[in-house]
Amino acid sequence: MTTTYGQIDTALPELIRLLGERLSTASAVREHHGHDESGFRPLPPDAVAFARTTEEVSEIMKICARHRIPVIAYGTGTAIEGHVQAVHGGLCIDLGGMDRILEVNREDMDCTVQAGVTRLQLESHLRDTGLFFPVDPGADASLGGMAATSASGTNAVRYGTMKENVLSLKVVTADGRIIKTGTRAKKSSAGYDLTHLFIGSEGTLGIITEVTLRLHGLQEAVSSAVCSFTSVDDAINMVIHTIQSGIPIARIELLDALMMRAINGYSKMDYPEQPHLFLEFHGSESGVVEQARAVQEIASEFGGSDFSWATRSEERNRLWKARHDAYPSALQLQPGTRAITTDVCVPISRLAECIRETREDIDRASMPIVMLGHVGDGNFHLAILPHPDRPQDVEEAEALNHRLVRRALAMEGTCTGEHGIGQGKIDFLQEQNPAGVELMRQIKRALDPQHLLNPGKVLHMPDNDG
Amino acid sequence: MTTTYGQIDTALPELIRLLGERLSTASAVREHHGHDESGFRPLPPDAVAFARTTEEVSEIMKICARHRIPVIAYGTGTAIEGHVQAVHGGLCIDLGGMDRILEVNREDMDCTVQAGVTRLQLESHLRDTGLFFPVDPGADASLGGMAATSASGTNAVRYGTMKENVLSLKVVTADGRIIKTGTRAKKSSAGYDLTHLFIGSEGTLGIITEVTLRLHGLQEAVSSAVCSFTSVDDAINMVIHTIQSGIPIARIELLDALMMRAINGYSKMDYPEQPHLFLEFHGSESGVVEQARAVQEIASEFGGSDFSWATRSEERNRLWKARHDAYPSALQLQPGTRAITTDVCVPISRLAECIRETREDIDRASMPIVMLGHVGDGNFHLAILPHPDRPQDVEEAEALNHRLVRRALAMEGTCTGEHGIGQGKIDFLQEQNPAGVELMRQIKRALDPQHLLNPGKVLHMPDNDG
Repeated sequence: MTTTYGQIDTALPELIRLLGERLSTASAVREHHGHDESGFRPLPPDAVAFARTTEEVSEIMKICARHRIPVIAYGTGTAIEGHVQAVHGGLCIDLGGMDRILEVNREDMDCTVQAGVTRLQLESHLRDTGLFFPVDPGADASLGGMAATSASGTNAVRYGTMKENVLSLKVVTADGRIIKTGTRAKKSSAGYDLTHLFIGSEGTLGIITEVTLRLHGLQEAVSSAVCSFTSVDDAINMVIHTIQSGIPIARIELLDALMMRAINGYSKMDYPEQPHLFLEFHGSESGVVEQARAVQEIASEFGGSDFSWATRSEERNRLWKARHDAYPSALQLQPGTRAITTDVCVPISRLAECIRETREDIDRASMPIVMLGHVGDGNFHLAILPHPDRPQDVEEAEALNHRLVRRALAMEGTCTGEHGIGQGKIDFLQEQNPAGVELMRQIKRALDPQHLLNPGKVLHMPDNDG
Repeated sequence: MTTTYGQIDTALPELIRLLGERLSTASAVREHHGHDESGFRPLPPDAVAFARTTEEVSEIMKICARHRIPVIAYGTGTAIEGHVQAVHGGLCIDLGGMDRILEVNREDMDCTVQAGVTRLQLESHLRDTGLFFPVDPGADASLGGMAATSASGTNAVRYGTMKENVLSLKVVTADGRIIKTGTRAKKSSAGYDLTHLFIGSEGTLGIITEVTLRLHGLQEAVSSAVCSFTSVDDAINMVIHTIQSGIPIARIELLDALMMRAINGYSKMDYPEQPHLFLEFHGSESGVVEQARAVQEIASEFGGSDFSWATRSEERNRLWKARHDAYPSALQLQPGTRAITTDVCVPISRLAECIRETREDIDRASMPIVMLGHVGDGNFHLAILPHPDRPQDVEEAEALNHRLVRRALAMEGTCTGEHGIGQGKIDFLQEQNPAGVELMRQIKRALDPQHLLNPGKVLHMPDNDG
């Protein structure tokens, strides 16, 4: 049986009655919501709803369920695997207006925010509380989107990803019910783990409208450093030794020589164009000194040089801002291009081998490719930059991406450490875990029998995309 | 539609052909598998299968699916909410014989074990590797069981629960398929989080046959201490201040005066019969000294006294062995009783209030009740000890338990922090999250449409238990 979706026209009167001017069919608005930051073909939705409350999302969902209209949740549009394109048309719900920070509980070190609150908005709100939220993907993403895509970032090696930092969610189901997945208790063994079911489901099982997050206490001392290496291999070996020594390093990021050139250009820095590690230490004053000493010793074993420290917070912020801007920096290397980005994650014992083989591939490629990543977790990214006028570059890039994923899978790794599946990695997920995908389909059918929620993402549903 | 289960007799020939003498219908064997360590009424299964491999569990499951026989996975039988009773009869699969440690990857700090490996078996296997696995419920439970019940323990405040320490599972589904839920990569955003779906599902969604665990590096320095207080209130306030100060304490456990009496008796200790905290610090030599100094200062603010240190590992082991034996210790206070145990977890800002109100209830009770818990997480337990000859005690105990759960829910807490739902907390889970339970039912129906897996636990299924 193939799903037949309804026409948006049949639902529009009800949607307009509910939302008034916050329902738009203007083509500029639709275009804007038809793509993320990836190179995937833009596919505008038929209409865009600007929601303000969970109850409103619930009402929208009920209308769309009655009329069989696909629904795509939209945060900031900063995903990079083709997450928000309206593959089957339908309604995009823009949650950006749900930007209220509902509560911060200092004593419990948690907070609850609407889905549209962005990570920098939260960061600025938490200033002077002594607390911070550690998950930091490159973009200033919304926290709802970060939960939906299981986002991660530079602090994950110490503080974990969204999976470890979400206590509870409020979710609207495919038929418009409102569900809380957890409580504010720090731990619970009360029934199935609904919180984790929705984290990383990319809007295909429900729409996340509120997020309750774990916060962390700011450390007494923070110190950042930059260190250069003559080869990526040396840098990686230094990382592996650091992790295996059990040093509780807060950040340890690899940027290859080309990435450094891009960052120098975009962020007006003047680092040598060599592989670098960006590092950060968190702890007590003496703890940070201890960690830094131990890491510097390991670095010197692997030829690390130019160890330069940033202890003042402005210096540190400049450093990490440059790191977070890696993606726009890379794009400048090939003006007019749409980058093909990819990420994999492997057990750390296989990381050196995985990166070595990948570098051989990069050296043979006919276009610029930058490598960077959260190597303390065994996770690294490529941004492949095909020439805008050479369509054959795209084909070559895709083949290289495929080889990378196959390499990671052969090493007991995963086809994506943090970018998610979107449209881009559906076949890779299938390759990684065919039996698991069949189980995911059972769950999808149970929770969204009409295939309304972000269809065409995460899973091929044979009865839907034929 | 009400589920009609098949008769075991119809499946026995096939099961015996598969398992030979490892299929038993002996009444002693059935009795042994008909109860956990709780006071819930024993309900023996119709037969017990002793499985050795995942493939065997899969074959057993296929036979039972064809004949519509309920299947209960059994590890060590140490749960305490009525988790393994054969409510609808059927086959118990004892996984205790699946006790092989399949691999330990020192470099990646992970290991993979069969479901029947127990936590002490793993601890002893890891000796001399420099690694340890932190999750430590009181009993020497199996790691499959610990994953299935989302177990926790004294180290959770620093190292997390099973939810944070399982990388991947191998699971047999209700129709006998074998599924791997994850990889050995430290993080992944590849599709729905099947790992967490099975953690805490108590054998109702699938049977866990292999577990891949995160391990942690042994710390350079470990130091334990015991400290007494004149009131539980003071002890709790000390805990709250410690947690809110961000001190990375590894263990901080409350034992009330009656619990101390029980431990003194059972473990031949001679602590004063006053509320105590058992504490442990992990870190570098200087880090541990720093933490201990900070905590001692906080303790003295709240009248903590008799701070006694255990730095040698034998002393420490004796201390924590006594703590882990809290449950059998408590039972000695009322010989011949079957304890009613319960646990809740609340945000730490509400912990003092929750415990104060609960103590008033305890003071009014007509039977002994001990209180203890992982208070650094906001999680505490009661073991209520009704007199074996006074049935009215049970009713009183249940009412007290109900008040405790309601109190925790009103404080944004959960009806169970780590004991799970089993049979004991099905109604409480419903009270805590009715909309969530409806979603859990949808998942249950999708993955186990015949209601074969551990029926009568976690959820009431209206089409099954009437």
